[in-house]
Amino acid sequence: MKLVPLSDRVVLKQMEAEETTKSGIVLPGQNKEKPQQAEVVAVGPGGLVDGKEVEMKVSVGDKVIYSKYAGTEVELDDVEYIIVRQSDILAVIEA
Amino acid sequence: MKLVPLSDRVVLKQMEAEETTKSGIVLPGQNKEKPQQAEVVAVGPGGLVDGKEVEMKVSVGDKVIYSKYAGTEVELDDVEYIIVRQSDILAVIEA
Amino acid sequence: MKLVPLSDRVVLKQMEAEETTKSGIVLPGQNKEKPQQAEVVAVGPGGLVDGKEVEMKVSVGDKVIYSKYAGTEVELDDVEYIIVRQSDILAVIEA
Amino acid sequence: MKLVPLSDRVVLKQMEAEETTKSGIVLPGQNKEKPQQAEVVAVGPGGLVDGKEVEMKVSVGDKVIYSKYAGTEVELDDVEYIIVRQSDILAVIEA
Amino acid sequence: MKLVPLSDRVVLKQMEAEETTKSGIVLPGQNKEKPQQAEVVAVGPGGLVDGKEVEMKVSVGDKVIYSKYAGTEVELDDVEYIIVRQSDILAVIEA
Amino acid sequence: MKLVPLSDRVVLKQMEAEETTKSGIVLPGQNKEKPQQAEVVAVGPGGLVDGKEVEMKVSVGDKVIYSKYAGTEVELDDVEYIIVRQSDILAVIEA
Amino acid sequence: MKLVPLSDRVVLKQMEAEETTKSGIVLPGQNKEKPQQAEVVAVGPGGLVDGKEVEMKVSVGDKVIYSKYAGTEVELDDVEYIIVRQSDILAVIEA
Repeated sequence: MKLVPLSDRVVLKQMEAEETTKSGIVLPGQNKEKPQQAEVVAVGPGGLVDGKEVEMKVSVGDKVIYSKYAGTEVELDDVEYIIVRQSDILAVIEA
Repeated sequence: MKLVPLSDRVVLKQMEAEETTKSGIVLPGQNKEKPQQAEVVAVGPGGLVDGKEVEMKVSVGDKVIYSKYAGTEVELDDVEYIIVRQSDILAVIEA
Repeated sequence: MKLVPLSDRVVLKQMEAEETTKSGIVLPGQNKEKPQQAEVVAVGPGGLVDGKEVEMKVSVGDKVIYSKYAGTEVELDDVEYIIVRQSDILAVIEA
Repeated sequence: MKLVPLSDRVVLKQMEAEETTKSGIVLPGQNKEKPQQAEVVAVGPGGLVDGKEVEMKVSVGDKVIYSKYAGTEVELDDVEYIIVRQSDILAVIEA
Repeated sequence: MKLVPLSDRVVLKQMEAEETTKSGIVLPGQNKEKPQQAEVVAVGPGGLVDGKEVEMKVSVGDKVIYSKYAGTEVELDDVEYIIVRQSDILAVIEA
Repeated sequence: MKLVPLSDRVVLKQMEAEETTKSGIVLPGQNKEKPQQAEVVAVGPGGLVDGKEVEMKVSVGDKVIYSKYAGTEVELDDVEYIIVRQSDILAVIEA
Repeated sequence: MKLVPLSDRVVLKQMEAEETTKSGIVLPGQNKEKPQQAEVVAVGPGGLVDGKEVEMKVSVGDKVIYSKYAGTEVELDDVEYIIVRQSDILAVIEA
């Protein structure tokens, strides 16, 4: 099963918060505030949203920062997704 | 009797939450938070909504994710429906 | 005396909630939550509402579902009416 | 002195609530909830209101139902008036 | 010093509430709720306000009724003024 | 260092409240409610603000009355400024 | 890794508040209210934002004052950034 977003919605999957110790060991994030970093999993078609043309700018695979209070959490096949409007995505993280 | 939605409204019927045990036995959802998954039962005609043209994108039979706080619950002939605006539908679930 | 609604208003009269026992006896609704089903009694002319063209889609005699928190209750000649905007009507009930 | 409303405002004068007993005697309303029925006393010129053209549809002498929480109460020469926007008038009462 | 209002603002000066006793003696208002009657002292130029053309309809010297919760009180040279938008003026009082 | 406001912003510097005693002695304002009078220190370029054309009407050196709850206080080089939108300026004070 | 803002967003990095004592010694800000001064680190492309054309006016390296309650704090590679809309930037500080 997969999620096909409507309109200007984007399906995100949160990235695991990791912490690298000085010795280089990576500790998976635990008891930490949820990061607002996520990976784009699916992108809606854009088009007329509330009477205004929206062009989609993000692509599947993009790593993004999204607005803290935005989005709806959805669980599908035991995976948790967040569905946001593209306007709730603040920036793309480039390597 | 059937519900014929006006404007950009969509009539939904909530999908039963099911849980499959490891042995394959399906247990009907009980004491679980209401899932936001539903099936489209009827679709309004769209058209001018608050002065803006709305084109309907969902179809009867679609399985959808809708926004948690949206919609009006309606009971007709002992069946419970939720009537939402199309803009409250976040994504279609494809098999 | 009769109510002639202005603009995109619709005058509704609430339908009596009835309950049919298994034996077929009909018990008038009592101590039950007010249903949101009503019959259309009068329909405004539509036209420009807040600068946007509204076309009236419901007709006198239609049975409709309306939004729970919408409308103004009005009593005239000992009959109680609800006056709503057409946009507060969610769906028409067809037999 | 008289009130000349601006824009889409309408000056109303509340109608006395009356109660006719079965014997036909009319008792003036007392300790009753204020009815939302009023008579139109003066009508503004309409025109551009918040950038949108408004055409006045009510006339002096019309008996109308107005929205419960709308309007400003004004006292002039010991008479109490309510000034509302035309959009707060829900319906005209016809005999 | 004088106040020159910008945009669609109007400078008002509240009228003294007076009470005429039956014998014709006029008692200046005291311990009474502030009347919403005021005299227009200065009128802004109108023009584009929030992207919408506003034409000024009131003139200096007009006696007006204004909306209870509108306006900013300003003291200049020991005189108290109220600055409102023209849309907060409900009606002109004509003699 | 100087502040160059963007868009329809105006940089203000509050005027010292002064009180003239009957004998003509001027006492600098103390323990008094902050006056809403200020002098214009810098004016933004105007232009398109939230999609609407804004023309700047105030000039550096103007003494103005501004809306009580508007603006952001900013300290630069130990001087305190208030940055407001031009629409928060109610009137210019002319001598 | 770097942040590439979308739409009318601007990535800011807060400037360290410093305090110069009379003797000329600079003390780094400590226990002081966070200043709203920041340096522009990255600027979005502008374009259509909520249906309205936005032209970007700030540039990387600009020192700016931004609105106190605006923006989202983001941490990347142990550096803290604030992402705001350009409309939340009140003024540029020029030397």
